[in-house]
Amino acid sequence: MKYYIKYVLVTVFILTVLNAYSQDMDSLTIRNIYSEALTSFTAYDNLRELCKNIGGRLTGSKQVVDAAKWYLGKLQSINVDNAYLQDVMVRNWVRGDKETAYSNSKSGKNDFHVCALGTSVGTGEKGITGKVIEVKSFDELKKLGRENVEGKIVFFSRAADQRGYTTGYGYGSSVGQRVNGAVEGARYGAIGVVVRSATDSYDYFPHTGVMRYNDSLPKIPAIGISTKDADKLSELLKADSDLSFYFRTTCKQNPDVQGFNVIGEIKGSEKPDEIILVGGHIDSWDLGEGAHDDGTGIIQSMEVLRLFQSLGIKPKHTIRCVAFIDEEIDQKGARKYAEVVKEKNEKHIAAIESDMGGLTPHGFAFEMSEERLEKYKNYQKYFEPYWLHLFVKGGSGVDVSFLNNAEVDLIGLIVDSQQYFDYHHSANDVFENVNRREMQLGSASLAGLIYLIDKYDIR
Amino acid sequence: MKYYIKYVLVTVFILTVLNAYSQDMDSLTIRNIYSEALTSFTAYDNLRELCKNIGGRLTGSKQVVDAAKWYLGKLQSINVDNAYLQDVMVRNWVRGDKETAYSNSKSGKNDFHVCALGTSVGTGEKGITGKVIEVKSFDELKKLGRENVEGKIVFFSRAADQRGYTTGYGYGSSVGQRVNGAVEGARYGAIGVVVRSATDSYDYFPHTGVMRYNDSLPKIPAIGISTKDADKLSELLKADSDLSFYFRTTCKQNPDVQGFNVIGEIKGSEKPDEIILVGGHIDSWDLGEGAHDDGTGIIQSMEVLRLFQSLGIKPKHTIRCVAFIDEEIDQKGARKYAEVVKEKNEKHIAAIESDMGGLTPHGFAFEMSEERLEKYKNYQKYFEPYWLHLFVKGGSGVDVSFLNNAEVDLIGLIVDSQQYFDYHHSANDVFENVNRREMQLGSASLAGLIYLIDKYDIR
Repeated sequence: MKYYIKYVLVTVFILTVLNAYSQDMDSLTIRNIYSEALTSFTAYDNLRELCKNIGGRLTGSKQVVDAAKWYLGKLQSINVDNAYLQDVMVRNWVRGDKETAYSNSKSGKNDFHVCALGTSVGTGEKGITGKVIEVKSFDELKKLGRENVEGKIVFFSRAADQRGYTTGYGYGSSVGQRVNGAVEGARYGAIGVVVRSATDSYDYFPHTGVMRYNDSLPKIPAIGISTKDADKLSELLKADSDLSFYFRTTCKQNPDVQGFNVIGEIKGSEKPDEIILVGGHIDSWDLGEGAHDDGTGIIQSMEVLRLFQSLGIKPKHTIRCVAFIDEEIDQKGARKYAEVVKEKNEKHIAAIESDMGGLTPHGFAFEMSEERLEKYKNYQKYFEPYWLHLFVKGGSGVDVSFLNNAEVDLIGLIVDSQQYFDYHHSANDVFENVNRREMQLGSASLAGLIYLIDKYDIR
Repeated sequence: MKYYIKYVLVTVFILTVLNAYSQDMDSLTIRNIYSEALTSFTAYDNLRELCKNIGGRLTGSKQVVDAAKWYLGKLQSINVDNAYLQDVMVRNWVRGDKETAYSNSKSGKNDFHVCALGTSVGTGEKGITGKVIEVKSFDELKKLGRENVEGKIVFFSRAADQRGYTTGYGYGSSVGQRVNGAVEGARYGAIGVVVRSATDSYDYFPHTGVMRYNDSLPKIPAIGISTKDADKLSELLKADSDLSFYFRTTCKQNPDVQGFNVIGEIKGSEKPDEIILVGGHIDSWDLGEGAHDDGTGIIQSMEVLRLFQSLGIKPKHTIRCVAFIDEEIDQKGARKYAEVVKEKNEKHIAAIESDMGGLTPHGFAFEMSEERLEKYKNYQKYFEPYWLHLFVKGGSGVDVSFLNNAEVDLIGLIVDSQQYFDYHHSANDVFENVNRREMQLGSASLAGLIYLIDKYDIR
């Protein structure tokens, strides 16, 4: 692209749209929120500190505790009215040694890029070896039955279906084998499972993520394998179905430990007992730095408070940001938070979650009745200059969903999903893959919506 | 993000939207176009070949000729009805040695990351040294006048204004000093100019791009400097305004050489003499691989033909893809193409350009009357499932704009701009920074719109 002819023309369009609303003080305030977010480096510098100084933050780890203390300190440094830790007992699953896997077949030995799936048992020090049975679905496994599966390693090789527009579609199409593969394998006597990573990317990065056991079945070890390695293994099996596969993981479950939700708030000037919550989760998987999942969510949530303060916006209701622990495994943080809300009879009027990555926002998903959503749609016009075109019914977020009751409006930020699962739960989820402006458009979108909810009490 | 709860909910919304249209054959065809684009790796593999085997493709270089031959071969390999090169004489500016720059001040020597601006004269073998005068605008330079500027190096340090939603806004706010800085410097007797890169990114990559001379003024050498180095130089100047700055560039202008536009087409079954054009530019700057600017544009344009063929869509009109040469400097390719169109009296009914990067598409900019645009807006509904929410008046593209006349509908693909200027004209514009799905959403959007234009002859 040569220079600015096209951009100026597009900008003319944008400015025209802007002008149409600019008599309106609300659009001016929202314009100021976006301008401040886009020109500030504070949130991006915070994300860098979180990712580079602390890194991956597995629930139950020292890192997730360090992150909570760091986050609390950051909240205090921007002089919020109140900032504190909330105790939560959480699981302490540890990964152990770097995982290894290889096959031996007629054509020789092949190494693979693998990782233990989250909460899996380990193989023991010596690892396990077995023949491999490849399946694309649980139905296929069922048809093969115990006689074909017993004593073997089950290889779940179904790829993400890439036809959908959102990459969540592909993820949803393939993640079931990660979550329930070990249960289904154990049901037919398998000794371990290998699962193709639930991602659209085609590379050598294995992706982790939570898996589940069924207490009535043996707990067998489960690993994720990169998409390129998964194809390689399929190819080797075609040439030699008798190949033997070895993998070794030393992950294990230690006793539960203390963890923390982190909470910060600006007190409302008129209705301090009514809360508008914005949050994400402070824990992450450990292979990367938990940048998009969900470093950006908690940094954006804190940034909402900073934007309000920096622009001198005094909310009528209390604006509270929450960094929940343990979203990735048992959601103990969200459960504890919801319990305390009930105990204290705290009134939340809205709870908004950012946990789809620090990518360009496209709108909001509203978990509420059509009737209630119609009220929110009146505010969509304020976000059109920023290309937020989706004000739709949909899921809000895992953590805020524990607050579900008729009085709380649950909302999730919708972002461009195309790159998300390239990073998600892998060593690729690092600071360098976050674009400052994209993340900050999310911060501004959250702050803008909260500004309107606070001012007009949409209920 | 834990697993697929939210995504499934968002997907339910998407599928609901899909179902609303699925009785309609056109939406089904467009759905098939997107599915084929999202599941195919052909275009992405082509982009990898272009970027990795040929790389940067400066107008006038051997690489841009190699690229034309490669592109022609690719067109032939997908059995289009007609594929050929169109001769174009183009400029042959060569960069020469890797550029160097440093300052000497009270605090010692500092090196900077710089690059010659496109079409600049060189400094000569020995380089040039001078005192530096820093300005933010041409007005400021004018006020300083010849007495303060003569014999010095002018440092244009205005940063891109980051407040706008599109990054084109910031680019437009700062690129003028790159294009006309040398003219304005020479007007007051400067011996050279150093220009802060027109980008939102904050790093050590200098960005090049075309600059202009005025024949009535001395031609002085011009370099771009990375944004971090620009700040460093400002800082050094604050501490020591007498510092001396050295830079050396050996770029020069050789005699014009032969270059090529590349043209491929599927002949229309009913109106073969009426053409729907889709194109981008085959030349690029030389610091990177010309991936987003505009490798993706020409790969998407060829992919439109492949999608039609692969899905058995037989167009009524001729669908022609064009890879224009020399977009970055003199637009000789686009001028020649338009001349030949006139000579041969070829009738174009629409011309669509993709030259804003292979990023997630948001819609189309229509360079036409409101009345004509209203007709296109009837088709917007087909693109809503793919989040294309902009069907707006705006600039189409530099190359297709030479076809401007009342009979041709000029259209440009609008994409997410947030990352674009991080890569644009820098060593960062490489294959690795293109996401396959984002690029392919662009291919499918172009193909879908062309399918509708062809079928309904929107005129």
